[in-house]
Amino acid sequence: MTAQIIDGTAIALKVRNEVKEKVAARIAAGKSQPALATVLVGERVDSVAYVSMKQKACAELGMTSYHKPVPADISQEDLENLIKELNADPKVNGILVQLPLPSHLDEERVLQLINIEKDVDGFSPINLGRLAQKGREPLFVPCTPYGCIYLLKEAGVTIKGANAVVLGRSNIVGMPAALLLVKEDATVTIVHSRTKDIPAVLKNADIIIAAIGRAQMVRGDWIKPGAAVIDVGINGIPVLDDKGNPVLSEKTGKPKQKLVGDVNYDEAKEVAGFITPVPGGVGPMTIAMLMVNTLRAAEIQDQ
Amino acid sequence: MTAQIIDGTAIALKVRNEVKEKVAARIAAGKSQPALATVLVGERVDSVAYVSMKQKACAELGMTSYHKPVPADISQEDLENLIKELNADPKVNGILVQLPLPSHLDEERVLQLINIEKDVDGFSPINLGRLAQKGREPLFVPCTPYGCIYLLKEAGVTIKGANAVVLGRSNIVGMPAALLLVKEDATVTIVHSRTKDIPAVLKNADIIIAAIGRAQMVRGDWIKPGAAVIDVGINGIPVLDDKGNPVLSEKTGKPKQKLVGDVNYDEAKEVAGFITPVPGGVGPMTIAMLMVNTLRAAEIQDQ
Repeated sequence: MTAQIIDGTAIALKVRNEVKEKVAARIAAGKSQPALATVLVGERVDSVAYVSMKQKACAELGMTSYHKPVPADISQEDLENLIKELNADPKVNGILVQLPLPSHLDEERVLQLINIEKDVDGFSPINLGRLAQKGREPLFVPCTPYGCIYLLKEAGVTIKGANAVVLGRSNIVGMPAALLLVKEDATVTIVHSRTKDIPAVLKNADIIIAAIGRAQMVRGDWIKPGAAVIDVGINGIPVLDDKGNPVLSEKTGKPKQKLVGDVNYDEAKEVAGFITPVPGGVGPMTIAMLMVNTLRAAEIQDQ
Repeated sequence: MTAQIIDGTAIALKVRNEVKEKVAARIAAGKSQPALATVLVGERVDSVAYVSMKQKACAELGMTSYHKPVPADISQEDLENLIKELNADPKVNGILVQLPLPSHLDEERVLQLINIEKDVDGFSPINLGRLAQKGREPLFVPCTPYGCIYLLKEAGVTIKGANAVVLGRSNIVGMPAALLLVKEDATVTIVHSRTKDIPAVLKNADIIIAAIGRAQMVRGDWIKPGAAVIDVGINGIPVLDDKGNPVLSEKTGKPKQKLVGDVNYDEAKEVAGFITPVPGGVGPMTIAMLMVNTLRAAEIQDQ
């Protein structure tokens, strides 16, 4: 048996095209152009790259982005004042604070300050609290878990009544993914570094969301035949030659790296029913769902 | 094997005595007497009884309570104004809105309005959102799940690394209990009415928290030998005679009722390692933990 590959790149493109059409339609109807403010504290290489991808996505989909780079040593007060300005600015529909923040800043206070109608990352405690509650709906669902569920649905995987296991309990992926799956009527198990026998727990899973940040940890024989495997991990590992020695880059002379997920893909795809590759699986969905949320923010604020 | 009975009545009394001593000490030190405001909308018999027990507990522990009964047809605006008054009143440390509210009222808006420093029930979305997040602590944990965890710890049950199953996903018990167990490093599975094979899931559980509201649903042979069973259920069932006919009350002529949990106690106590009875298990803990939270509210507001 070979798994059906869930093509995140293609599905993300479809989502982006839908957003693009809706944006064009709302502008044609005389409504405002949705706008995302991106707050970047400092110059972490990965954060700079992510923010730049988000701004580029906005431009491609016909939305505006306002870039707000601030120095790494900004004070809590100045950062809070920036958030308050963006909250008050009617031109700004969504506010994205690129995480992580430098350690001298109180991340929770910053996230809590974002007006929940502009909280397109879905990280404010109010949005998360609603995600944890029956009969209440968050205004925004965090982008990566939202993308995971979207991929499952696009692939035609039945979530209701399924045994779902979430590997990892991070604020950004694992925990909100678990809460979303409960809302979708799955029986959900949250597994983490303190879990005693992870293979035994996974063996009963119809759906696995792996977001634990350990390269190729989930082996093929841990997976129930036919299960749907969503791999959120992005880990760099050295490229090895036939003899198992690291291959060096011709340019830099350093060991070459390749990106792998939390799942051993080559083994898993022979057992699973559905699987996302890394790269090209969950990765592209995060920005696509951020675009969905930014459009939604504009729609909420129309009212 | 016969389970160790976890005596909730005795443990609750111990907790209440500790609170009583701390209240006396803080008053002796010239600090304020902790005060709980109880908001009762309408006259539901069960709600009236619960509120009265809470007021009585305050009095016994040396704390004040302010009772705020309002008519069942109060408007959303008037109820919100009452909450705002209580938020602003420095004499009030904790605000308890007895649930459920009549259906014309927006429960979420009311709970969200309670100042989180006075949210002694722990039901505001901010407190719940913090409970769902790593590295963040709610100011208050909802009383019943808090009591469940307290009972496990008092009985000496190891939570870290244990397989815990929570039956039920209510906002008041199931979901916050699951989030608390994740914070305590258990591997947590959330089971509910849509779960396909509940006995199979329970069979691996070292800890079971049953809060699904179905009389005696959990059978003895569903339980792993030695597991700790916390039974949150309180269900009325008819008392039967030897022939299986309902026994009628001599006073009222109606069928006599008795209270049972979500677990078949007689069967379960032969298999489990630890078990809470119903009544006398979790029940008394809810009010005890409310008293802990009210004292804590006063301490937070001292600062």
